[in-house]
Amino acid sequence: MEEIKIVGFGGSLRKKSYNGYLLNISKGLMPANSSLEILDISKLPMFNQDEEDNFPENARVFKEKIRNSDGVLISTPEYNYSIPGFLKNAIDLASRPYGDNPFENKPVALMSASIGMFGGSRAQYHLRQSFVFLNMIPINKPEVFVTMAANKFDEDGNLKDDMTIEIMKQLLKNLVETARNTKK
Amino acid sequence: MEEIKIVGFGGSLRKKSYNGYLLNISKGLMPANSSLEILDISKLPMFNQDEEDNFPENARVFKEKIRNSDGVLISTPEYNYSIPGFLKNAIDLASRPYGDNPFENKPVALMSASIGMFGGSRAQYHLRQSFVFLNMIPINKPEVFVTMAANKFDEDGNLKDDMTIEIMKQLLKNLVETARNTKK
Amino acid sequence: MEEIKIVGFGGSLRKKSYNGYLLNISKGLMPANSSLEILDISKLPMFNQDEEDNFPENARVFKEKIRNSDGVLISTPEYNYSIPGFLKNAIDLASRPYGDNPFENKPVALMSASIGMFGGSRAQYHLRQSFVFLNMIPINKPEVFVTMAANKFDEDGNLKDDMTIEIMKQLLKNLVETARNTKK
Amino acid sequence: MEEIKIVGFGGSLRKKSYNGYLLNISKGLMPANSSLEILDISKLPMFNQDEEDNFPENARVFKEKIRNSDGVLISTPEYNYSIPGFLKNAIDLASRPYGDNPFENKPVALMSASIGMFGGSRAQYHLRQSFVFLNMIPINKPEVFVTMAANKFDEDGNLKDDMTIEIMKQLLKNLVETARNTKK
Repeated sequence: MEEIKIVGFGGSLRKKSYNGYLLNISKGLMPANSSLEILDISKLPMFNQDEEDNFPENARVFKEKIRNSDGVLISTPEYNYSIPGFLKNAIDLASRPYGDNPFENKPVALMSASIGMFGGSRAQYHLRQSFVFLNMIPINKPEVFVTMAANKFDEDGNLKDDMTIEIMKQLLKNLVETARNTKK
Repeated sequence: MEEIKIVGFGGSLRKKSYNGYLLNISKGLMPANSSLEILDISKLPMFNQDEEDNFPENARVFKEKIRNSDGVLISTPEYNYSIPGFLKNAIDLASRPYGDNPFENKPVALMSASIGMFGGSRAQYHLRQSFVFLNMIPINKPEVFVTMAANKFDEDGNLKDDMTIEIMKQLLKNLVETARNTKK
Repeated sequence: MEEIKIVGFGGSLRKKSYNGYLLNISKGLMPANSSLEILDISKLPMFNQDEEDNFPENARVFKEKIRNSDGVLISTPEYNYSIPGFLKNAIDLASRPYGDNPFENKPVALMSASIGMFGGSRAQYHLRQSFVFLNMIPINKPEVFVTMAANKFDEDGNLKDDMTIEIMKQLLKNLVETARNTKK
Repeated sequence: MEEIKIVGFGGSLRKKSYNGYLLNISKGLMPANSSLEILDISKLPMFNQDEEDNFPENARVFKEKIRNSDGVLISTPEYNYSIPGFLKNAIDLASRPYGDNPFENKPVALMSASIGMFGGSRAQYHLRQSFVFLNMIPINKPEVFVTMAANKFDEDGNLKDDMTIEIMKQLLKNLVETARNTKK
């Protein structure tokens, strides 16, 4: 059985990001014959169309890692009831120039953690609209919204909530299976 | 009659940005007893919560200009069927730390230009969802969507379309009137 | 001080609708010098443009009640992550024919109850997009999402949750104040 | 090669509905080894949860036709910047009772015609959010938005626009191919 390679990004730029924790934890929850590589988006430049044929090395590598993957995992907080700017910028950057879209036909799964009650849902639904343009294959279920995150992680970024871990496992399984079917 | 001070930002980071042109043109279309100051967002840092009590000077100034204004004009392109990352980042940055929101109770108007057929509408509706959280007063009408922008601007950034100019004037008039009523 | 007249509708068509309960409870929470009249939408016809100049009597009355009000309260469940069809149909019906919009410039507030965790938020954000077209004045805050509704109402439709009642009161106060300012 | 059975619904309730025309035209554009059956939603009852175990015969048949199909085509106008109430009601009705979802894992494609400039896009993006809950497989591309519809159809409901016909063909081809792959 061929190995399925997933790339993951998102989190937030702060060190103790709950969404960063979700990415780290996901590495240990991947199904057999699959891997998750976490991509750093904290040092990507702001997208500027005048420079899109001349992106810096880290932007070029970010894009190539997506292109060479079999699927994408995004862990996103919610800022102002929508996608965080730094995360949307990473997607904008990788999606350009027009016609050279590494996300094309890639399955994509979403996770969010938030200290509030809605767990990032509003950011996820906006991301799903971007996936229509990017022509990605969104995994519908299970939706992973870790609410009241301050109560669910310990100091070292471990998740103390078995039900959430089971749901994350199921999402990662669905992502990898869809990636395997898409690759055929 | 007291002068109403509007601040405007958005555009895109490239030099010949159609949305940047819309901001420049708006300066000449403001109603009597009002002014528009355009704020540069091209050099703002990426929002990082760990540093939110210690923003660099340009972020601090950006936020204070919004706070001291009577209303906000945003001119936004659409990237991947949503808000451009760099613009959302500017809003995220100014809205933090939590509880210190300079957008609170400010009227806000939206304009977009795009080379496509939908003129940026998908970005605008996502921004309107952010305005719920930010507790802004969105101007509903007229909606300004400059479609097929490549045909409507000349080389120097002038708009060769009288109907669009009239609609922009009407939007700016509504924004300033709402700002005047809100201030009372 | 002039009385402010609010009309409310929504709920769901079942008898023990949590969202219908929210409307009933709201009647007792209205601020001084204001009233809430609940409008029945359960017998409205499906909107059909061929018949829009000839609506049945109950549709005509529904529309006139909205027109003669100072503001609107909608209590909405969430069906399939969006606005319930029967509620959207009531709005579609009242909004026609084109150019004769009784919602124009009316303040509008939203409430939702659901047995799930998100309390109807996805329906509310879609409704807010309709309000842009209808040119209404949406109340931003507080957002009323009664989650886990099965635990919060008793058999007779009373709400056993003081915090929710306080939030509802605040929303109704903001709605009536905005209606009073708009009327001036 | 097995025949792929698609069911289509939507349109509007008026006789000369542009969106009804799109469904009719689609019948003649289906790829080899596939068929499109158009379902009448004009006489469905309003969804009422109290009666969901006891739907009338036409609602039961509508639901079974969806269940027995390999994929779904929806042609939707846009009412008040969202999904028309009568169409959303048909979806709500078929999706109930909870746990008995005939849309589950079915590919779905969208078309819209409108007399305006945006061709129904705002209705389509809201429908796509419903598809997340319904766990459908949305076809991303091509997006079919027939703008300025009054100029593009003749009196008998024929489409006088070859480019639109080509795009519709491509969408139906993608829908049928996805249905074929999903069935395996």
